[in-house]
Amino acid sequence: MNTKRYDIGRQNLDKIDGACGEKVIKSLEDISPDLGKYIIEFAFGDIYSRKGLSLQEREMITITSLLTAGGCESQLEVHINGALNVKISPAKIVETFLQCIPYTGFPKVLNAINVAKKVFHERKLVIENSNF
Amino acid sequence: MNTKRYDIGRQNLDKIDGACGEKVIKSLEDISPDLGKYIIEFAFGDIYSRKGLSLQEREMITITSLLTAGGCESQLEVHINGALNVKISPAKIVETFLQCIPYTGFPKVLNAINVAKKVFHERKLVIENSNF
Amino acid sequence: MNTKRYDIGRQNLDKIDGACGEKVIKSLEDISPDLGKYIIEFAFGDIYSRKGLSLQEREMITITSLLTAGGCESQLEVHINGALNVKISPAKIVETFLQCIPYTGFPKVLNAINVAKKVFHERKLVIENSNF
Amino acid sequence: MNTKRYDIGRQNLDKIDGACGEKVIKSLEDISPDLGKYIIEFAFGDIYSRKGLSLQEREMITITSLLTAGGCESQLEVHINGALNVKISPAKIVETFLQCIPYTGFPKVLNAINVAKKVFHERKLVIENSNF
Amino acid sequence: MNTKRYDIGRQNLDKIDGACGEKVIKSLEDISPDLGKYIIEFAFGDIYSRKGLSLQEREMITITSLLTAGGCESQLEVHINGALNVKISPAKIVETFLQCIPYTGFPKVLNAINVAKKVFHERKLVIENSNF
Amino acid sequence: MNTKRYDIGRQNLDKIDGACGEKVIKSLEDISPDLGKYIIEFAFGDIYSRKGLSLQEREMITITSLLTAGGCESQLEVHINGALNVKISPAKIVETFLQCIPYTGFPKVLNAINVAKKVFHERKLVIENSNF
Repeated sequence: MNTKRYDIGRQNLDKIDGACGEKVIKSLEDISPDLGKYIIEFAFGDIYSRKGLSLQEREMITITSLLTAGGCESQLEVHINGALNVKISPAKIVETFLQCIPYTGFPKVLNAINVAKKVFHERKLVIENSNF
Repeated sequence: MNTKRYDIGRQNLDKIDGACGEKVIKSLEDISPDLGKYIIEFAFGDIYSRKGLSLQEREMITITSLLTAGGCESQLEVHINGALNVKISPAKIVETFLQCIPYTGFPKVLNAINVAKKVFHERKLVIENSNF
Repeated sequence: MNTKRYDIGRQNLDKIDGACGEKVIKSLEDISPDLGKYIIEFAFGDIYSRKGLSLQEREMITITSLLTAGGCESQLEVHINGALNVKISPAKIVETFLQCIPYTGFPKVLNAINVAKKVFHERKLVIENSNF
Repeated sequence: MNTKRYDIGRQNLDKIDGACGEKVIKSLEDISPDLGKYIIEFAFGDIYSRKGLSLQEREMITITSLLTAGGCESQLEVHINGALNVKISPAKIVETFLQCIPYTGFPKVLNAINVAKKVFHERKLVIENSNF
Repeated sequence: MNTKRYDIGRQNLDKIDGACGEKVIKSLEDISPDLGKYIIEFAFGDIYSRKGLSLQEREMITITSLLTAGGCESQLEVHINGALNVKISPAKIVETFLQCIPYTGFPKVLNAINVAKKVFHERKLVIENSNF
Repeated sequence: MNTKRYDIGRQNLDKIDGACGEKVIKSLEDISPDLGKYIIEFAFGDIYSRKGLSLQEREMITITSLLTAGGCESQLEVHINGALNVKISPAKIVETFLQCIPYTGFPKVLNAINVAKKVFHERKLVIENSNF
């Protein structure tokens, strides 16, 4: 095993996704521990540790990509939590989703907003996000 | 017509997409001018003028969404130009695309990188973007 | 706020999606009221009020697009109700979905049919739709 | 071979897609004639010959599904021709695409409009389709 | 009705998808029996009975396509069962999903693995699938 | 750099994708050499070198995933060549695509067949693939 990539990835996963990320890796242990290893080594080790973008920017890109892909509600839940963990405000998360409307249409944005609503509620967050 | 929304949208379109955006609107004139009007009023008037995200962040979200959707190479070309116009560096555009690998896989990232390559070449931009 | 677009959109939303549409807008109030406003003003105000297609045709297009996009089961539920509200028969809704088989394959059609089944059951509708 | 399904399908293909459809089937002859056979027997034989929707409605559903799927520009070209062949007006084809904006976003609609523009130009059709 | 295609399809469906496939067809009886008929005649009659690929290969292709499409979790459940029924080992099913990571990204693979986990658990299957 | 993963990946890339793969990596040199590195290390190093599936099976999965994703015609071209390089016959490649029809619909299968046609033609391959 490539200890260094794994260790860096593990630290990034803990910092960004916290308990949610840990839960995903745990859930893979009895079916595909290697999948968990690749998520840690490649996604969080190789990619998230790159220079050139802040963690806030990386999470903004991630939730945009998951919204656009569709059908990734559980990963979106992990990464909306991740976005909050790296100090993106709830209002900015919602604003990120609204920016997608012209490119994805309303249904995918509604799906993402519903996941955000659930996460904000669980974390007892209140948002002020009307521009009007 | 809603002059105010249109005028704001027109200004945003000019500032962000410049000649490329103008070309898209022009190309619609003889087939669906209303589509051009909605792009200006709704996308660039209502959405791009919202508070809460910088134009740089909005373009980063836009190119991420277009990469993830797939099959949107001509819109990606317009918005890679847009990203450059609002002063996102070529290296940061490439880095945005690399952040998508874990979420979209390599093929869509390769497609987006190829469009970026064409745009950077046309604008005679050179990038330094290896993290290694 | 653009009162006229909003009012026209509100009327169209009430006529087409009825209680289901109202519920979606309500659910957005504490997280993104602006998203609800854009759905009303742009989707139901600007687009649904256009000439050139009947409301029945607009709903047929809408449920086709939602089926094809995939992962939009809750929006499909709203618009299957919408299709019924503007007097498209249950059999014609099912037939619309079957027409998609050659273009989307069976899985997405099965997903849409399952949503239709739930809606028809809730509205106590019985259909006669075998061509054989 | 199931002659009846094939013959019905062949007639429908000729009526709807005309020379374009013929070209698709021809192009498959040396690589996968069976694929051509299934398109004729299943898509045009089984599905297009069903009761419950007019051919105009079937083509409207088809072009909506192809627009939404994305990346199907050559099939869209065949079926925009098909829509015109069964007497859907150019303006109504454009209107069908505009109805998709709220559900698919602008990029896919722009892609479809560009294909329509090419087809209308080839067939020397002029449209009047602004609602304003 | 085309008895021969239907009978072959019925046999293939029973052999491959067993009780799960039967349940899908049953569930369509009161809403769209014709959809069930097409699944049997075309998918399982025409396609699955073709020469040139083993049933194991056909199921491997099917679960790959369903994973990649996204949003097809219930069809994936049927076909993971189908793959097991035609004697693909649980470890090989998981390996098929891991091969998709570079092409689809992690989220879709995670979704498919979660469905596999549920199916393996229901069938009390234990897997040994780490390569490390 | 992780020499071992890179070297294994490089060998796999050469064996499978040959000149086509080399061309992709080369084309990235002046815009994103790191992307080429990840394709080699992660896709071809980590994933393709795993046990549990033959290279033939891995390529069959890959072309199925690329067909289903849509909009990945250039990657499909590389991997149809890859499939031929690892000794999958042209007829079996076509058969793999036909197996996808029930799950993806005809348009994506037609797109993939067209790429195969181009590749087979370039490699002067003739196929016998009718089942009838």
